[in-house]
Amino acid sequence: MKRFHQTQEITFRQCDPAGIVFYPRYFEMMNDAIERFFRDIVGWPYRQMHGTDRRGVPAVSANMEFMMPARLGDWLDWQLSVDRLGRSSATFRLEAYLDETAVVSGCKTIVHTDLDRMKSLPWTAEVRSVLSDYCHAEGGE
Amino acid sequence: MKRFHQTQEITFRQCDPAGIVFYPRYFEMMNDAIERFFRDIVGWPYRQMHGTDRRGVPAVSANMEFMMPARLGDWLDWQLSVDRLGRSSATFRLEAYLDETAVVSGCKTIVHTDLDRMKSLPWTAEVRSVLSDYCHAEGGE
Amino acid sequence: MKRFHQTQEITFRQCDPAGIVFYPRYFEMMNDAIERFFRDIVGWPYRQMHGTDRRGVPAVSANMEFMMPARLGDWLDWQLSVDRLGRSSATFRLEAYLDETAVVSGCKTIVHTDLDRMKSLPWTAEVRSVLSDYCHAEGGE
Amino acid sequence: MKRFHQTQEITFRQCDPAGIVFYPRYFEMMNDAIERFFRDIVGWPYRQMHGTDRRGVPAVSANMEFMMPARLGDWLDWQLSVDRLGRSSATFRLEAYLDETAVVSGCKTIVHTDLDRMKSLPWTAEVRSVLSDYCHAEGGE
Repeated sequence: MKRFHQTQEITFRQCDPAGIVFYPRYFEMMNDAIERFFRDIVGWPYRQMHGTDRRGVPAVSANMEFMMPARLGDWLDWQLSVDRLGRSSATFRLEAYLDETAVVSGCKTIVHTDLDRMKSLPWTAEVRSVLSDYCHAEGGE
Repeated sequence: MKRFHQTQEITFRQCDPAGIVFYPRYFEMMNDAIERFFRDIVGWPYRQMHGTDRRGVPAVSANMEFMMPARLGDWLDWQLSVDRLGRSSATFRLEAYLDETAVVSGCKTIVHTDLDRMKSLPWTAEVRSVLSDYCHAEGGE
Repeated sequence: MKRFHQTQEITFRQCDPAGIVFYPRYFEMMNDAIERFFRDIVGWPYRQMHGTDRRGVPAVSANMEFMMPARLGDWLDWQLSVDRLGRSSATFRLEAYLDETAVVSGCKTIVHTDLDRMKSLPWTAEVRSVLSDYCHAEGGE
Repeated sequence: MKRFHQTQEITFRQCDPAGIVFYPRYFEMMNDAIERFFRDIVGWPYRQMHGTDRRGVPAVSANMEFMMPARLGDWLDWQLSVDRLGRSSATFRLEAYLDETAVVSGCKTIVHTDLDRMKSLPWTAEVRSVLSDYCHAEGGE
């Protein structure tokens, strides 16, 4: 199983009056990480997905545990893998580390959707194959 | 058990290119709802909490299920209750309804914290008593 | 000339590590204020504007002066008026006061746009009439 | 005069229901660009500035013109220079280009501030020297 790594610095706009990351900003980072995964690894950038192809990947659930506060200027190592791959859904696992210490860990489940009819669609073979490479285990829906 | 109700309209800044709420914005709404609960029901506004009293309520976890997409101009009825009340923690449950239909449902667990020493602190009797009124069940930590 | 008033409390999600409002959040408040003006005063909610009618009001410019820092829990009185009304454009002036003291002041110029053809369109007589009531002065484009 | 260049892709979280960048997000990008300039060019990261040194650079004004809508997946070339350098203030000019076409252009004026006493402070000689290299013209306050 592969993992997709990205490093990102905590910026001023992500921090709250207590000087730590405002937690809804972590869900923005989660979104960014999956968006980059689709662009760089799956080879299906959101621009083409949403524009030309009229497909989307809306969230059906998202969760996070905040194990340690992260601060302005911390460099987080984000690791993305796929926890579960369904016929038209996928559950991504996102973990962020500061040095070797886990800062946040969470999951987001998305559904491959036809934006014009707002109905779920099976993954194409090409997308499915890439998601499988990053998947711990596979299963039906 | 009581529930704290708030209604809120979905605004332009909360919506994404698919025309539905961008899900990290739901976590901002979750934050707003709990902030208003502390102000209006607990009687402990964040300004006093964070400023004068140097206390905070950082998140240790947050999750949401998105059952139905909400759109620009939808009026959501947010309902807040307490799922679990610990010595220094509390798990809030937030549910949003559009008419009678559940749109999102989720939880956020916070810990009452001394901001200067960054250590958890038991709830005061006053705060605890209010949280209890909104709690399904109580338990130790 | 009329003014549209709204009061709003500064919330946690709008504040930065220095404990004051993060200035891009003021532009979100500016957006919210104009959105509410279109809903409550013009009688043309964004949902109908963007959805049914396929019209939009994209920004062509925005500016703000930050005269005094505002903090968590401050209640701002927002006042909206129209500085300049063109054939298909309008420049809104937004001012926020804390008690009697000006906190921020700025302008946003929008253009009434056909979203499908992405071309500007003259205001309808109905909309124009309401904008005029809130306008300091009128002029051609 | 030097210019600081950065390229950045427009992401999903920055776009609105009309499919273009939500303009308060441009002010977030403006903030990010100046933050990176202080880190990479001035050699004074915000973490050290706000934390160790207890200095800040709050905005006194910000403005932007939006010449052309930018969309999901557009790569913007951001160019930063200094329009005016005062004793304790600086006005940054930010311009973003898509290929050769100007997308947005704007300014932000900041004041070097002692965060504990909330008073303005002259730039140090080191910081001033770097800001001068990126400045069109210099002047007193």
